[in-house]
Amino acid sequence: MGKLLIVGTVAFDAIETPFGKTEKILGGAATYIGLSASYFGLESGIISVVGGDFPVRYLDMLSDKNIDLEGVEVIKEGKTFFWSGKYDYNLNTRETLVTDLNVLAEFNPVVPENFMDCDFLMLGNLHPLVQMSVINQIPERPKLVVLDTMNFWMDNTMDELHQVIAKVDVITINDEEARQLSGEYSLVKAAQKIHKMGPQYVVIKKGENGALLFNNGDVFFAPALPLEDIFDPTGAGDTFAGGFIGYLASSHDVSFENMKRAVIYGSNFASFCVEKFGTERMQNLSQNEIQARLKEFKQLTQFDIELTH
Amino acid sequence: MGKLLIVGTVAFDAIETPFGKTEKILGGAATYIGLSASYFGLESGIISVVGGDFPVRYLDMLSDKNIDLEGVEVIKEGKTFFWSGKYDYNLNTRETLVTDLNVLAEFNPVVPENFMDCDFLMLGNLHPLVQMSVINQIPERPKLVVLDTMNFWMDNTMDELHQVIAKVDVITINDEEARQLSGEYSLVKAAQKIHKMGPQYVVIKKGENGALLFNNGDVFFAPALPLEDIFDPTGAGDTFAGGFIGYLASSHDVSFENMKRAVIYGSNFASFCVEKFGTERMQNLSQNEIQARLKEFKQLTQFDIELTH
Repeated sequence: MGKLLIVGTVAFDAIETPFGKTEKILGGAATYIGLSASYFGLESGIISVVGGDFPVRYLDMLSDKNIDLEGVEVIKEGKTFFWSGKYDYNLNTRETLVTDLNVLAEFNPVVPENFMDCDFLMLGNLHPLVQMSVINQIPERPKLVVLDTMNFWMDNTMDELHQVIAKVDVITINDEEARQLSGEYSLVKAAQKIHKMGPQYVVIKKGENGALLFNNGDVFFAPALPLEDIFDPTGAGDTFAGGFIGYLASSHDVSFENMKRAVIYGSNFASFCVEKFGTERMQNLSQNEIQARLKEFKQLTQFDIELTH
Repeated sequence: MGKLLIVGTVAFDAIETPFGKTEKILGGAATYIGLSASYFGLESGIISVVGGDFPVRYLDMLSDKNIDLEGVEVIKEGKTFFWSGKYDYNLNTRETLVTDLNVLAEFNPVVPENFMDCDFLMLGNLHPLVQMSVINQIPERPKLVVLDTMNFWMDNTMDELHQVIAKVDVITINDEEARQLSGEYSLVKAAQKIHKMGPQYVVIKKGENGALLFNNGDVFFAPALPLEDIFDPTGAGDTFAGGFIGYLASSHDVSFENMKRAVIYGSNFASFCVEKFGTERMQNLSQNEIQARLKEFKQLTQFDIELTH
């Protein structure tokens, strides 16, 4: 069993989809990553920051999942990061209505003593300088460092982002971000260019069209599970990342063959995440449900063709 | 080995992509379907119509692939169906520049005597009344009837189209067409509604995002092979259909497990088709190339996860 450290936002989200609307609910990249990874029963901790307005019951819920919160700073006089967004009718595009950075604006991550020897590090979507600060605080390089980022940092802090990208083993981005980062439309060519920036593994997320894992010449594809209804896509990418690194940390094996399984586990958790608003579905999954859906993934993708040459 | 009958266009295409432009070259749904199915070494024939301007060397090339052309009527004083289209920079959308129906306007398909006992019937994209006429000429229902169609017929001849759909075992359409036909955005729900129209199997093609095979509760997904460059998408859907029905006819097995393999074969051939203009790549494939790429499909999609429940 590996020891997993996650840095990312713990936040309030207010979400509007064609199916309904929420008040401020629990959100944030580290929340989704932590919940998803928690199903592997490993030692994990979050580094983040919240305000005095953040409900203790949310922190208790995460603690109950065996997620260490020593690295979550509570700034009593501050307010928690708040994001609000609205999805269009087919859930493929969303509009950001509000982004209140609040306590996140001055976020200064501090790695707890107990996680100085973490061997799996997940850098959730944040300012590249915050991500770099965490890398720099850990004395011995972890076995695997996974970076998630987004177009906002490419638009505004590309130099700092490139410095972080150069230091990680895996980058997870969506297809449009891969194109923006590489300047290539073909995702095969985009992955080739991104490999040269540093990461040995490139994961390109395509939402309802699945995810690609590139490792130089090799490529693996995991579809998204076809669902009757997608209720709320918020957090699906972070949930994917949490399932991916959580599986790798629990098996302590970072071979390409094992990364294939990790991508399937990530897709599996993401398929649950989108079934309800926010983190609701991810708070209470049973191992039976997880295994039953893995079986669906096998039926969806596995075939036997004998090769004659 | 089954006997495969294909009805569809044999045509001239003029294609413009970001990578180049062709004069009138060989095209047409039945041409792509026939070429793709020809690699299975089965008995196959085409029903179509061309004009006196259609080069004998094109017909010879198809005959050399063991495709029976007795059902291809040549109207000496007529001109061959001509389509011209232009793709945008990322090849995802195309504009039709010219559609000259010519001899196709009066197409009256006649099933050759030798194919009255065909056991696999592929209805390529054509007016639903032409497709229905072929169904009605065959005295004993074939083992499997596959229908391809497009949004044009949904816009203009929906009643006639529904009558044909009610008579087939498999329908192949793209994602937007599945949504239009069913009125459902979710492809899972769309497939459920289309099942109720008749077809036991629904294949939804998503271009570079792969293809889904639905059989009531069961679903299988085949990705498109990630390629460095896509040169010309023309004919990819027909090539997919030809590989799909060609494999089924050659193995004479229409179980769901075998249809999974057929979808992979279809995707395999489509991945070759898009590598060059028109039918060029599909005219000269070796069994080694086909098998090598099937191996790539296996590496792309196969994983081993042991289920614990």
